[in-house]
Amino acid sequence: MEGKEEDVKVGANKFPERQPIGTAAQTDKDYREPPPAPLFDPSELQSWSFYRAGIAEFMATFLFLYITILTVMGVQRSSSKCASVGIQGIAWAFGGMIFALVYCTAGISGGHINPAVTFGLFLARKLSLTRAIFYMVMQCLGAICGAGVVKGFGKTPYEVHGGGANVVNHGYTKGDGLGAEIVGTFVLVYTVFSATDAKRNARDSHVPILAPLPIGFAVFLVHLATIPITGTGINPARSLGAAIIFNKDPAWDDMWIFWVGPFIGAALAAVYHQIIIRAIPFKSSA
Amino acid sequence: MEGKEEDVKVGANKFPERQPIGTAAQTDKDYREPPPAPLFDPSELQSWSFYRAGIAEFMATFLFLYITILTVMGVQRSSSKCASVGIQGIAWAFGGMIFALVYCTAGISGGHINPAVTFGLFLARKLSLTRAIFYMVMQCLGAICGAGVVKGFGKTPYEVHGGGANVVNHGYTKGDGLGAEIVGTFVLVYTVFSATDAKRNARDSHVPILAPLPIGFAVFLVHLATIPITGTGINPARSLGAAIIFNKDPAWDDMWIFWVGPFIGAALAAVYHQIIIRAIPFKSSA
Amino acid sequence: MEGKEEDVKVGANKFPERQPIGTAAQTDKDYREPPPAPLFDPSELQSWSFYRAGIAEFMATFLFLYITILTVMGVQRSSSKCASVGIQGIAWAFGGMIFALVYCTAGISGGHINPAVTFGLFLARKLSLTRAIFYMVMQCLGAICGAGVVKGFGKTPYEVHGGGANVVNHGYTKGDGLGAEIVGTFVLVYTVFSATDAKRNARDSHVPILAPLPIGFAVFLVHLATIPITGTGINPARSLGAAIIFNKDPAWDDMWIFWVGPFIGAALAAVYHQIIIRAIPFKSSA
Amino acid sequence: MEGKEEDVKVGANKFPERQPIGTAAQTDKDYREPPPAPLFDPSELQSWSFYRAGIAEFMATFLFLYITILTVMGVQRSSSKCASVGIQGIAWAFGGMIFALVYCTAGISGGHINPAVTFGLFLARKLSLTRAIFYMVMQCLGAICGAGVVKGFGKTPYEVHGGGANVVNHGYTKGDGLGAEIVGTFVLVYTVFSATDAKRNARDSHVPILAPLPIGFAVFLVHLATIPITGTGINPARSLGAAIIFNKDPAWDDMWIFWVGPFIGAALAAVYHQIIIRAIPFKSSA
Repeated sequence: MEGKEEDVKVGANKFPERQPIGTAAQTDKDYREPPPAPLFDPSELQSWSFYRAGIAEFMATFLFLYITILTVMGVQRSSSKCASVGIQGIAWAFGGMIFALVYCTAGISGGHINPAVTFGLFLARKLSLTRAIFYMVMQCLGAICGAGVVKGFGKTPYEVHGGGANVVNHGYTKGDGLGAEIVGTFVLVYTVFSATDAKRNARDSHVPILAPLPIGFAVFLVHLATIPITGTGINPARSLGAAIIFNKDPAWDDMWIFWVGPFIGAALAAVYHQIIIRAIPFKSSA
Repeated sequence: MEGKEEDVKVGANKFPERQPIGTAAQTDKDYREPPPAPLFDPSELQSWSFYRAGIAEFMATFLFLYITILTVMGVQRSSSKCASVGIQGIAWAFGGMIFALVYCTAGISGGHINPAVTFGLFLARKLSLTRAIFYMVMQCLGAICGAGVVKGFGKTPYEVHGGGANVVNHGYTKGDGLGAEIVGTFVLVYTVFSATDAKRNARDSHVPILAPLPIGFAVFLVHLATIPITGTGINPARSLGAAIIFNKDPAWDDMWIFWVGPFIGAALAAVYHQIIIRAIPFKSSA
Repeated sequence: MEGKEEDVKVGANKFPERQPIGTAAQTDKDYREPPPAPLFDPSELQSWSFYRAGIAEFMATFLFLYITILTVMGVQRSSSKCASVGIQGIAWAFGGMIFALVYCTAGISGGHINPAVTFGLFLARKLSLTRAIFYMVMQCLGAICGAGVVKGFGKTPYEVHGGGANVVNHGYTKGDGLGAEIVGTFVLVYTVFSATDAKRNARDSHVPILAPLPIGFAVFLVHLATIPITGTGINPARSLGAAIIFNKDPAWDDMWIFWVGPFIGAALAAVYHQIIIRAIPFKSSA
Repeated sequence: MEGKEEDVKVGANKFPERQPIGTAAQTDKDYREPPPAPLFDPSELQSWSFYRAGIAEFMATFLFLYITILTVMGVQRSSSKCASVGIQGIAWAFGGMIFALVYCTAGISGGHINPAVTFGLFLARKLSLTRAIFYMVMQCLGAICGAGVVKGFGKTPYEVHGGGANVVNHGYTKGDGLGAEIVGTFVLVYTVFSATDAKRNARDSHVPILAPLPIGFAVFLVHLATIPITGTGINPARSLGAAIIFNKDPAWDDMWIFWVGPFIGAALAAVYHQIIIRAIPFKSSA
């Protein structure tokens, strides 16, 4: 990671002013790509920052599920959607929490809060396998705890109103649900890749500074579009946490969709970004 | 384009602090305008970044239509608007996607995602004719694919609920629709010009950093105002893609409005920005 | 104005890192305040940037009234508020347009788009009397034209649905309306002063960069609160433009409220900022 | 406080480019932590900036209660929620005002506007006890005045519609309300700590610049989730001000929840940030 700092500085020296909106990318490639993270990095396991990052992922996913599932419950329990924050309010809760939590945890753990994001960044070799697995476990534990606290506000209404669990809704096939999860996660992880691109960070002034905002908006937008289809997963920890606490058949029957879909979407976003946008496999190393 | 970097640096040296909000513009013009893009630039056609930019425009317009038309379908299929994200949610979907996609693709292709934006920037000689035509073709192809995927989630409801196609609604004349498209596109393209102004980028610190946000908001705001009139086009690729996939008479009858209107609006915005705001024709070259 | 640039640079050198959120203000005053604008500045009248600024104010206020009054009409014409963008959508239209237009015109004219803002900044001697009057005239002309175009989309519905004109609603007294306008304009102009403070611009990194966003949000928030009382003016040009085009008694009867209220609110904000926050009268000049 | 500036500059020199989103934190700690604020700082009491900060907290809390309670009243008085800005509009009013007010007052007083935030920052020794108590008193006075002005717009409807006071709603226990306040305030104060972290300010470019935005969003998000439970306090001054002006039993019976909950939540956030994220107790001083 130390090498990355150096790389970026080189880029910054070369491009004192940033790439303006509206013009096409420059073609000269005068900065060095950060080296890929190793698959296993034993030294990580001895550093406090590794465990702190895992705790931060746990806490962020806990708060994410707590606020979002509580918002879903508030809307479902309301006698009329008009007397609640509405479906749009649910979309804001999911997107807004990702914005705030990425803002808060980006400097601690990278701010993934989502196994699909971790998976996509792992495929791009932005973090080690050890760290990726540790993050995913902590995210799932956080999600279970977050949904569990919401159930504590009322077990009966929680179960009556579906517990915020993701299922493929009536009128849509399993294939529809899987497709919606794939493309939705693609939108999210593609935005994450754009925000984490060392080249873009060095050149486009809006990329590093706004970063948490479009990532949160991507989550908001996918919810606007796909809540009617699946309730919107695009985050396997969120789907797993709600399913474990809800623990009824419909949520378990479709669970595979909310793991397979996001992981495929994240992989496609990683491929698109690394191969089409950055053409990294075709470059000589460093 | 290389010359532009240099120009901006000169401006940046001269104005180490940026223009504060609330004060009028300075009158001294101490930076050089970037040279206009050539009409045809054969060297472009041999660079990977040219084709990558086209792919990015395709992908962005694909995702734009996918999320927005799917949101429209979700609202239309809902038994009650209150049980959906509502008309305001549709406006957020359009504006929010433009925000996120301009953020993601600005450094790759300029982030147009709209033939009217490409046309306006071409008139201001910000890109070559070759590139402008290539972008427009890719945008239209992306839009068709995006709308097509939405139709895949349910052919019958897609056709029953209008397919997200733009038509002039009952209670408004064709002239109303054309006017709404002209002024709406003016708002969008004027915002794009303000965000891409080399002079403003050099002086006003909020201009380069926030840029994708007001561009997205412009799209959101025009939708708030003109969804009741035309469903809001202000993007010929969006209107064409939905019309081709919907493929029924009402959408085709009004199609000319959603090309002529946006192109007139974009041209007016280019004229307003280049002649009134920048007075570029009255200056000696460089 | 040239002196201001120099002042700010001095501040910037002294405080290379900016004031973090959460800590109280520093007490040392090591930068120079920009000199007050002269009351009359004859040289302004011979500069193109003066007239360009007026044209920009005209165009911004035109687009502001066009989008906002069209949104109001769309909500009013809808058979059910749920089938429209709703009252919240109206608030977004007003606030969002101010955000986008301040972003676009801040570097050209200062981005006032509101006689009350111009009046407040004039009291703080941020612009000359000549410029203040010119701006107010252009804002009112722009507002009249913007509302006029909306009326062109349908004269009968425009008149039936109140034309977006500001009146004190049933259940509230004239005094309530005046009070709501005073405090509402105070919120807006206080935010503008915070964003235009040379000292804050030099020290707090979020102030110059985000500036258009909180100004737009201030307008949005005041609309959330006071649409039920007066429809929310806080902008005499907006109230005048809608009243002239609507041209019926209720709008004219209350017109004084929408001039006196905003001007009092703006004056209080100027006094609060200059006397309490900046203590400028108690300092020796420069 | 002067020492902090120096610390941050050292950090800035060492890390010329900032920490990108998506990567984990660096482990080297090469900047100095600012010294803790003294418990009592007699010199503060003789500085105008101390009293100015208190006035700014009073004014900000006054405007916060005025806009938010007026929005609540507008929604409650509406014959149908659909003809008002709705519950989501109330959440925007609370969150949006915090965004705008933190933006405006951060450089004057730190922009707390909330005794729980002041308490959390005091526990982390970011301000003296004298200043903390002074801020809390001014915040409560401001809140009382803000709610009082809203009552002035109509005493009868204010009392009929609950006066915007916080109570635990039917269907929830006192324990539910206390829990909701604790976790909700944790979300807010954790975001504030992330935004005020000297280390993060030095390294992550989005942290100092966006700061007011995620703080405002945190308030918005907690309102989306917990308005159905308690109306959402997470700000003892807001709850006290509304209760004093409403002055009926239900608001007083639950008042302890809206002080104990937020203070516990703020303390937990301070502990989490200082011990887990920053590990400050385990480091040698400076």
